[in-house]
Amino acid sequence: MSDKKVVLAFSGGLDTTYCAFYLKDKGLDVHTVIVNTGGFSKKELEETEKRAMSYGVDSHKCLEETSSFYEKCLKYLIYGNVLKNNTYPLSVSAERAFQALAIAKYAKSVGADYIAHGSTGAGNDQVRFDLIFQIICPDIEIITPIRDNKLSRQEEIDYLATKGVNISWEKAKYSINKGLWGTSVGGDETLTSHLGLPESAFPSQVEKEGSEVVELQFEKGELVGLNGNKLDSVDAIFKLNDWASKYGIGRDVHVGDTIIGIKGRVGFEAAAPVIILKSHHTLEKHVLTKWQQHWKEQLANWYGMLLHEGQFLDPVMRDIEVFLESTQKNVTGTVTVKLAPYRFEVVGITSDKDLMKSEFGQYGEMNNGWSGEDVKGFTKILANQSKIYNSINS
Amino acid sequence: MSDKKVVLAFSGGLDTTYCAFYLKDKGLDVHTVIVNTGGFSKKELEETEKRAMSYGVDSHKCLEETSSFYEKCLKYLIYGNVLKNNTYPLSVSAERAFQALAIAKYAKSVGADYIAHGSTGAGNDQVRFDLIFQIICPDIEIITPIRDNKLSRQEEIDYLATKGVNISWEKAKYSINKGLWGTSVGGDETLTSHLGLPESAFPSQVEKEGSEVVELQFEKGELVGLNGNKLDSVDAIFKLNDWASKYGIGRDVHVGDTIIGIKGRVGFEAAAPVIILKSHHTLEKHVLTKWQQHWKEQLANWYGMLLHEGQFLDPVMRDIEVFLESTQKNVTGTVTVKLAPYRFEVVGITSDKDLMKSEFGQYGEMNNGWSGEDVKGFTKILANQSKIYNSINS
Amino acid sequence: MSDKKVVLAFSGGLDTTYCAFYLKDKGLDVHTVIVNTGGFSKKELEETEKRAMSYGVDSHKCLEETSSFYEKCLKYLIYGNVLKNNTYPLSVSAERAFQALAIAKYAKSVGADYIAHGSTGAGNDQVRFDLIFQIICPDIEIITPIRDNKLSRQEEIDYLATKGVNISWEKAKYSINKGLWGTSVGGDETLTSHLGLPESAFPSQVEKEGSEVVELQFEKGELVGLNGNKLDSVDAIFKLNDWASKYGIGRDVHVGDTIIGIKGRVGFEAAAPVIILKSHHTLEKHVLTKWQQHWKEQLANWYGMLLHEGQFLDPVMRDIEVFLESTQKNVTGTVTVKLAPYRFEVVGITSDKDLMKSEFGQYGEMNNGWSGEDVKGFTKILANQSKIYNSINS
Amino acid sequence: MSDKKVVLAFSGGLDTTYCAFYLKDKGLDVHTVIVNTGGFSKKELEETEKRAMSYGVDSHKCLEETSSFYEKCLKYLIYGNVLKNNTYPLSVSAERAFQALAIAKYAKSVGADYIAHGSTGAGNDQVRFDLIFQIICPDIEIITPIRDNKLSRQEEIDYLATKGVNISWEKAKYSINKGLWGTSVGGDETLTSHLGLPESAFPSQVEKEGSEVVELQFEKGELVGLNGNKLDSVDAIFKLNDWASKYGIGRDVHVGDTIIGIKGRVGFEAAAPVIILKSHHTLEKHVLTKWQQHWKEQLANWYGMLLHEGQFLDPVMRDIEVFLESTQKNVTGTVTVKLAPYRFEVVGITSDKDLMKSEFGQYGEMNNGWSGEDVKGFTKILANQSKIYNSINS
Repeated sequence: MSDKKVVLAFSGGLDTTYCAFYLKDKGLDVHTVIVNTGGFSKKELEETEKRAMSYGVDSHKCLEETSSFYEKCLKYLIYGNVLKNNTYPLSVSAERAFQALAIAKYAKSVGADYIAHGSTGAGNDQVRFDLIFQIICPDIEIITPIRDNKLSRQEEIDYLATKGVNISWEKAKYSINKGLWGTSVGGDETLTSHLGLPESAFPSQVEKEGSEVVELQFEKGELVGLNGNKLDSVDAIFKLNDWASKYGIGRDVHVGDTIIGIKGRVGFEAAAPVIILKSHHTLEKHVLTKWQQHWKEQLANWYGMLLHEGQFLDPVMRDIEVFLESTQKNVTGTVTVKLAPYRFEVVGITSDKDLMKSEFGQYGEMNNGWSGEDVKGFTKILANQSKIYNSINS
Repeated sequence: MSDKKVVLAFSGGLDTTYCAFYLKDKGLDVHTVIVNTGGFSKKELEETEKRAMSYGVDSHKCLEETSSFYEKCLKYLIYGNVLKNNTYPLSVSAERAFQALAIAKYAKSVGADYIAHGSTGAGNDQVRFDLIFQIICPDIEIITPIRDNKLSRQEEIDYLATKGVNISWEKAKYSINKGLWGTSVGGDETLTSHLGLPESAFPSQVEKEGSEVVELQFEKGELVGLNGNKLDSVDAIFKLNDWASKYGIGRDVHVGDTIIGIKGRVGFEAAAPVIILKSHHTLEKHVLTKWQQHWKEQLANWYGMLLHEGQFLDPVMRDIEVFLESTQKNVTGTVTVKLAPYRFEVVGITSDKDLMKSEFGQYGEMNNGWSGEDVKGFTKILANQSKIYNSINS
Repeated sequence: MSDKKVVLAFSGGLDTTYCAFYLKDKGLDVHTVIVNTGGFSKKELEETEKRAMSYGVDSHKCLEETSSFYEKCLKYLIYGNVLKNNTYPLSVSAERAFQALAIAKYAKSVGADYIAHGSTGAGNDQVRFDLIFQIICPDIEIITPIRDNKLSRQEEIDYLATKGVNISWEKAKYSINKGLWGTSVGGDETLTSHLGLPESAFPSQVEKEGSEVVELQFEKGELVGLNGNKLDSVDAIFKLNDWASKYGIGRDVHVGDTIIGIKGRVGFEAAAPVIILKSHHTLEKHVLTKWQQHWKEQLANWYGMLLHEGQFLDPVMRDIEVFLESTQKNVTGTVTVKLAPYRFEVVGITSDKDLMKSEFGQYGEMNNGWSGEDVKGFTKILANQSKIYNSINS
Repeated sequence: MSDKKVVLAFSGGLDTTYCAFYLKDKGLDVHTVIVNTGGFSKKELEETEKRAMSYGVDSHKCLEETSSFYEKCLKYLIYGNVLKNNTYPLSVSAERAFQALAIAKYAKSVGADYIAHGSTGAGNDQVRFDLIFQIICPDIEIITPIRDNKLSRQEEIDYLATKGVNISWEKAKYSINKGLWGTSVGGDETLTSHLGLPESAFPSQVEKEGSEVVELQFEKGELVGLNGNKLDSVDAIFKLNDWASKYGIGRDVHVGDTIIGIKGRVGFEAAAPVIILKSHHTLEKHVLTKWQQHWKEQLANWYGMLLHEGQFLDPVMRDIEVFLESTQKNVTGTVTVKLAPYRFEVVGITSDKDLMKSEFGQYGEMNNGWSGEDVKGFTKILANQSKIYNSINS
């Protein structure tokens, strides 16, 4: 292995720190890389870089992919109102595929012989990374020291101590993964089926009382403003999230099917995502036809599932994206949302494309668009098949 | 028309009272009928009967169909976690099809020449009634005086005054339809797209503070107990609803596609339905396989749509019912729910059928069921198609 | 009605000839129009014009829409391999929507007060025409003399005789509708469920024996050549059809669900369509991924259904079109087909995008892309969910 | 390994013969087993047994599962009109899952320590076997000597020679797998994309000329008779297949997505299956409603896909089976089919449940069930949503 180059996905945590030293020990040139898709602050990224360099890696690279992640992936989750099993906005997990992609391309560009990541053998992330690496750079071998060696935390800590790394690797009570599209929370409770997470487990704490109203501006399906102030969509997500997190909005616990076939339970807090998704969905209910909504839901849920399972590179994903984009042509308008502690409600929408604003007739009110006779004819013909079926079969 | 028999769907409201007199005027024998699918109290039904008889109708009949509605229809909405457009539990509207069915069979059994209902020409109910009447009793003619004559409220009131009926028909600010599966609320705001309903519009007012926990017992998909007390499913729904309504849970406003192609907006309060559906769904996420959940969702949403649109008699509905029933074999367990003002959360579940309780491996934890090598092989093969695609197309 | 302008969809047959005189009698300015979407020869169109003018209509217009029909609609049926109920290529019926569209736009452009068509009350075409007219020009009233007056053929003939039109309107034994995408055939047998059509009912007669081979060149999903000769797609369809019709290929009888809820049975001969669809589909099986094929099929069948039912203008159709277009990026290659009397077979394909041509492994042969161990790991993980399910439930 | 018991799936071919000796060499008690799901004659089964015993295995067992395969699996493929990618009736491959199931249960019942099969590492069968063994008997270890040792044919032959087995293992030009539901054919041509199979490759040769008519009797979706003679369904399939094979009906070449992600091409001859499926489908088009047909197709195609991929034990398969069974209630009637060399046509059907036989109206003919006014009303309402959409968006 010696004299060869490995690109290591590096977060600065215990597992990837172990990997850095382990790979050096194997005689490899170690090039650490971290991908930011919105979960890290500038300060965190700088500290990670400092840490990597202090461990003697040969180079460290931060790939800033937040805008790209939004443009090439997250946008479509919004277009599609994607909530896995009607619950989970794919917080963090959606970003994994995108991070893998960036790392794979980076590894290729630097001519790496190996790619390493710190995943264990029991989660989804290993599959997402392996899948995308094998597709993008099938000739680069994958190394997963933690998974392969089945190491315990203590063994890793002891090994690092021999390297002079004596950071206090105290295990946090909750494993937190922050991302642009929400934060996942794992802990003792999520390893059971019956316990909920305590308030303290969530990253944000409720600071506000009473309620307030916020207006979301959408243009062709994208969030482009808050309370009338035009914003870049990524900024709008961050801003809305800061705001709504103070109410503790968007918390839940989801149990889902992992890629490896077992059930996995995870807590999450995703204030902006759940507000944006329900607002966007409400706007769509006003401006799209029945069958547009129907097919969007089919395709978007599939998109979410494949994304969740690391299959972002299946070409059907590109086909679904153009479909979703096409449906957003008229998804322009303002949605009014009321925020309150632990909850929110969508008050209503205004849109030039609102199909309720019609001269042809209003629900429950007298109309000019058609007569009672027309509806009689309508139901008469609509009844035909069941009427015939019933006459023959009963 | 004279000397012929008409069965009139009668609620005792302005429209159907008008119809009763109007049909008498036409020389018909008027037989009023009301179907209870859970929305009326015994007292309300008695008053309706008294009122009908006082108007001089030839007979009045109350058809008690609550259990039957639950058994033959509502049960499947629970099995299917049906929320129209992920929002609306089909409160009330689901019952309409069932009421139409009961009326149609009654009209047939009494040898009616006509069936009359008080629907206007601008809503869903007219279609639901007409459809089912035409299928079940195609030889009985349908009469809809309000729709046909396009009468205003004042015209109806004036006409009734000539008959000596001088009830104060003051229009309620909100039109309320109560049912076993929730209450719908319409009013000035729901005729707009941008206004929400005020607190006062909702049938229940928030009486409780703080939070409390309730346990829901499910057996093969049906709610069969609360806090360990065994209950008939219909009783359990009523009881949970009384309880949770005191917290103002389950309110929202939905805009949907009506059967006649226009958009319709409706408020609703459905405490028990939304709690039961999310609890049931959470339990299912623990006990069903990924593809069971996938296909249940497809079929159940379709079932909800056809039911909403009055197509309860399409034989595909029976086929979907047996599918849904088959999926419920293992949906047995207890769901813990925390109630609080305006919201609730599902805390967790316990079930002997929980697929998380496996010796084969636990999410995110070291496992005995497989090795890191196995996952490597898994992802290698799983990557094949996209890998080949990528090698050829890039 | 007098002094007003009516645009009449005119074919020159008995029904529309009746309409022309009937509308003149009503004092209307009658402007006949015929839309060619590939079913009429230049000579037929000239004769229809001559006939219309001789009846004293105020103007006659031929709208040549063949290319437009191919570009805006038929192309997507090919992309989608659309066979209604896996049987019927939507011959002719697909063109109706397009014809209605052209007529509606024409009527609008000439400022018509009415649009008239000669449909009866028992078929699909009346719905297709009415639907599209109402959507495109809701202010123009629709007149359907044949449907409204429930006239018999003899009554129409008698009326025309009073106008001096004494053409021999002998009813053909079979009603034939020719179009670019096949010819439909109706007759006594198709009014039964059990009888097939005799050879003589079909428009082409078998002239060839033995077999011959033809090569179809596809580029991004479109047929662009035959036997290596580049052709415009419309020309290629015509040419292939002339060729293959001499073998009597593409005949069948389909029974389907009409828009009005009854079953309708129709014979058809569609040599080029069935050959092109199976060839295109085979090519796709080589170049698309599993999930691309899966979702194409879902969306394309829906597209076919809505088109068949006259719902070409639902915006979901535009969304599906971009999806289908996106999937065709790699559908480029040559398909070899063997023609023989009454049948054909797809021999094979060649394509640079063929996913079978992979260095990574070949079906049933030893491979370099993975090891037996990899497949073991794959199946081990793939078995997980059912294994867990089985361990708990049996 | 010694003194332990292995159950070996044994066909008597080169690979499984090698396995028998190889496993004996490892010191194991070898118990061979063969499962008949319709592909073997009594004589073939006896010869296989004789051969196994002559090789010194410790026991040999033939599991007769033909009826069970039909009852528990094949029946649903017929109910569902399952043709993979509208082409391939899942000949043989469907039986593999069932064979695996029988072997797994047998291995469990005899207390086996190991199960062995002769699959290579490049096909679907290895996955089907491994999957089902791991689900049914996760504690029994799987041995796959051919896959693990990557042996060439010659190496196997040489090894067997050392054991005194000197059968002439000449490789057939085509690899043929016979089953109740058709015969698959692989050979040099199917390893390419562009070549078809020669006539001689197919198991049956065309012996008949001209055409003849056969009537298929269906009862609740099952084939229960031919030409009016009542037959057990399995017998009916065999009989029809013998008959129609003399015409060379049901041949094609399919390229599909294997479970391991590569494309696989296979020829097949399946006379009875293709005739039964098209006949059954035609009957269904007459007796089922539009949405029954729609949902049957969705679920049945999924059923076929999961079955093909070895996922027969996913509980969703049981849910789909009850759905499909429910749809067959009225699929009773007679289908007339014309057989001719290389092709057949469905002439028509007769059924008491035929929805065409209605008093309410006939396609294209004047009707009593509704008026032209009714259709006008119908289309007016049906146009509403697109009309509103168009008025706002154009």
